[in-house]
Amino acid sequence: MINVESVVERIREIIDDENTKQLREVLDGYHAADLADIFNELTPSERLSCFNLLNEEKAADLLEYLTPQLQVELLGEIDQEHASKLIAQMPHDEVADVLGDMEEDESESYLDKLPRKFSSEVRELMTYNEESAGGIMNPMVLTVSADSDIKDVLDTIRSKAQKDNMDLYYVYVTDKQEHLLGVASLRKLLTSPIRSKITDIMTRDVVKLHIDDRQDYIADEFMKYQFSALPVVDLYNRLKGIVTWDDVQDIVEEETTDEIYTSSGIATEMVEDEDDILTGNIFHAVKARTPWLFITLIGEFFAVNVANRFSHTLTMLPIIAIFMPLLTGLGGNIGTQSITLIVRGLSTGQVTLKTAFHHIMRESAIGLLIGIIFGTLVTLVTWGWQHHIGLGLVVGVSMVINMACATLIGTLTPFVLKKMKVDPAIASGPVIATTIDVVGLFIYFSFATAYLIHITG
Amino acid sequence: MINVESVVERIREIIDDENTKQLREVLDGYHAADLADIFNELTPSERLSCFNLLNEEKAADLLEYLTPQLQVELLGEIDQEHASKLIAQMPHDEVADVLGDMEEDESESYLDKLPRKFSSEVRELMTYNEESAGGIMNPMVLTVSADSDIKDVLDTIRSKAQKDNMDLYYVYVTDKQEHLLGVASLRKLLTSPIRSKITDIMTRDVVKLHIDDRQDYIADEFMKYQFSALPVVDLYNRLKGIVTWDDVQDIVEEETTDEIYTSSGIATEMVEDEDDILTGNIFHAVKARTPWLFITLIGEFFAVNVANRFSHTLTMLPIIAIFMPLLTGLGGNIGTQSITLIVRGLSTGQVTLKTAFHHIMRESAIGLLIGIIFGTLVTLVTWGWQHHIGLGLVVGVSMVINMACATLIGTLTPFVLKKMKVDPAIASGPVIATTIDVVGLFIYFSFATAYLIHITG
Repeated sequence: MINVESVVERIREIIDDENTKQLREVLDGYHAADLADIFNELTPSERLSCFNLLNEEKAADLLEYLTPQLQVELLGEIDQEHASKLIAQMPHDEVADVLGDMEEDESESYLDKLPRKFSSEVRELMTYNEESAGGIMNPMVLTVSADSDIKDVLDTIRSKAQKDNMDLYYVYVTDKQEHLLGVASLRKLLTSPIRSKITDIMTRDVVKLHIDDRQDYIADEFMKYQFSALPVVDLYNRLKGIVTWDDVQDIVEEETTDEIYTSSGIATEMVEDEDDILTGNIFHAVKARTPWLFITLIGEFFAVNVANRFSHTLTMLPIIAIFMPLLTGLGGNIGTQSITLIVRGLSTGQVTLKTAFHHIMRESAIGLLIGIIFGTLVTLVTWGWQHHIGLGLVVGVSMVINMACATLIGTLTPFVLKKMKVDPAIASGPVIATTIDVVGLFIYFSFATAYLIHITG
Repeated sequence: MINVESVVERIREIIDDENTKQLREVLDGYHAADLADIFNELTPSERLSCFNLLNEEKAADLLEYLTPQLQVELLGEIDQEHASKLIAQMPHDEVADVLGDMEEDESESYLDKLPRKFSSEVRELMTYNEESAGGIMNPMVLTVSADSDIKDVLDTIRSKAQKDNMDLYYVYVTDKQEHLLGVASLRKLLTSPIRSKITDIMTRDVVKLHIDDRQDYIADEFMKYQFSALPVVDLYNRLKGIVTWDDVQDIVEEETTDEIYTSSGIATEMVEDEDDILTGNIFHAVKARTPWLFITLIGEFFAVNVANRFSHTLTMLPIIAIFMPLLTGLGGNIGTQSITLIVRGLSTGQVTLKTAFHHIMRESAIGLLIGIIFGTLVTLVTWGWQHHIGLGLVVGVSMVINMACATLIGTLTPFVLKKMKVDPAIASGPVIATTIDVVGLFIYFSFATAYLIHITG
């Protein structure tokens, strides 16, 4: 990997020297992905000067690696003729994404300038949901007819693949109405006798996506079959495009972010654009963050109510109050560990509803074991500090039961949600913390009250 | 996707009918990835009967998709001659993984039965760290010499690629000592004139991995450049193998799991095999879970100590105690939201140290805004419930400041860790919960004490 900072420094020096020739040479030396990293660090005016020095192919390449914001920024700064030329060199699905991020009149004016066939393909892509196979796929697919032999296929590749910016992993065999008949890998193609019929080497049991398939399903299919690309068909089995593994990389990252956000009680479904939560409109962020905080508020009022029911104990034995954070804090943390393990396991497939019983037993045993360790510690420390063995035992025994319950609740909750066909990640953090506050305090105050009755006779 | 449960049911019926011919036909109809899902659900004896009916190619294919446990189980059940034949059909890196999961004498006896060249390649792979490029790569790479033209390359592919189980994405050009000179994509190969020299179409600026590169670095390189495969070289630039995108899918999943575990305070570095935390030895799980719970324990004793310093207030105004979980609970949750957003952002690259100031300001504003909403709510509810406006204001105003502080701490912490070159995910959950308990209670008790002084004059 390049050291972006030092490259940027060097580029700034060359810009200051106004040495255009040298700047062009330096920029030409980097892979488009590296240039994207460099462009991220430049100021808008530096970016524009650098961008104008790139040849058309490199500029189009670079655009593919840039963030949507920078794509729109750069295309807006250069003249529209030039911009249209660059866009025409990018894959259709990328173009649909870029134009989708622009204002409608702006994207329309680009579409008008693009070649007719190209712009109509892009327009069609823009009608699909961004998170469906239709919105993700590249419509340019290498298709051959069923009567081709390998030589014909190789000729087709030579004439078509280069100019149409196609991903080359598989060759798809279709009939005249574009119905998908079979698929052959490039490897099979290149290792079979040149006069073989494509129908003799192709696979007829094609693993394929439907145009409406959602992105989480698509990611699962790729993870499972490990194909480099999957064809996308419509209701009538007509081939509409392909989704490639690099599209899936982005999906997996997005889905993971969604899972992590959801787990910590951020309601991603409250905002249209998930990026808003981190960087966009501040009120959208508030909207995504309040719903589960509100549920927490209600839950914590239950905890407050539990404590209130024991107000007599608190008045008689006020020292009891100061250990509350110890109980709720440790219970919350061990419960979070369990819920994290199970939610992630369900998401990767390492844990299933079938193995639920095993995990519930295992986690409870772990919770009890850790509870005993920490309960003993807490008893000893409290005893030593407050010189009060009774208090030490109340806090310590509550800790054991509290930690065991917390692991049990943390393990049980995701399985129950999964069984109810609710995403087990939903608010696992807040829900567990609140439940454990309620349960943990109830256990603690019950022991404390029993102890109080015991000592006051 | 197939409905695994109903297929398994059908297969069980056929097994009961002892209809071997039909069973073979049914099994043959499924893709190896589907068979792997089916095999997961079968009993060991059913698995073995089914496995024995598969032809060699399908059986070897299936093995690649199975979990390490099932691979070892099935290979152990069939006779070693047959097992060796199947192993010899699998890619070298897969074989190294399977044999690495066996007892040493068992894997040795397989290695002895494999073709000499194959077993020596596998032995070399087994010497590399499992999480390095050497441990992940497939050593079978398609290489051609610099004096080849495209026709020669195609001939090489035809003769070598099929029998050697090579991944075909790029062709690598090497000299006689295997030094890597350049790379050409299959696409470039198939779209250039057949008599072109490979040196004329190849790229000389090869993006490559070093044999010792760690898996998180490898994943980043793939995410960045989006190549389907990257070559792996040794210190002297000699080509040793390739890593392909499907290897990276598994790495990304593993790294994500690691990030999620670490965030919730599970010390993954305490165990050799991360799977132990979820499914393995129960004492290993305890070992991974206790370190951060122990830190939490110490932190919560600070919180207890803060509360203890205000014991006078607690004795005079015991009602104060019952609102403690409300403060710590909501502070913990909003702080966790912030830390989750920043940690994930740093991991995907959406957030950098450069934008730290912006995020700190933004999150603080969000925290203050949400704090005001919730503070107002809490004041009103407490006032209404306890008929005590003063108490309502103490709880409410503490809530505002508590939530604002929690977001600030949650945002600041990962940046500080990152700056100190510590993984920002480390224990973000437990650390934030504990810190916020200490800070939140201090704020709350300070207000309560001020109020107490005010009313008692």
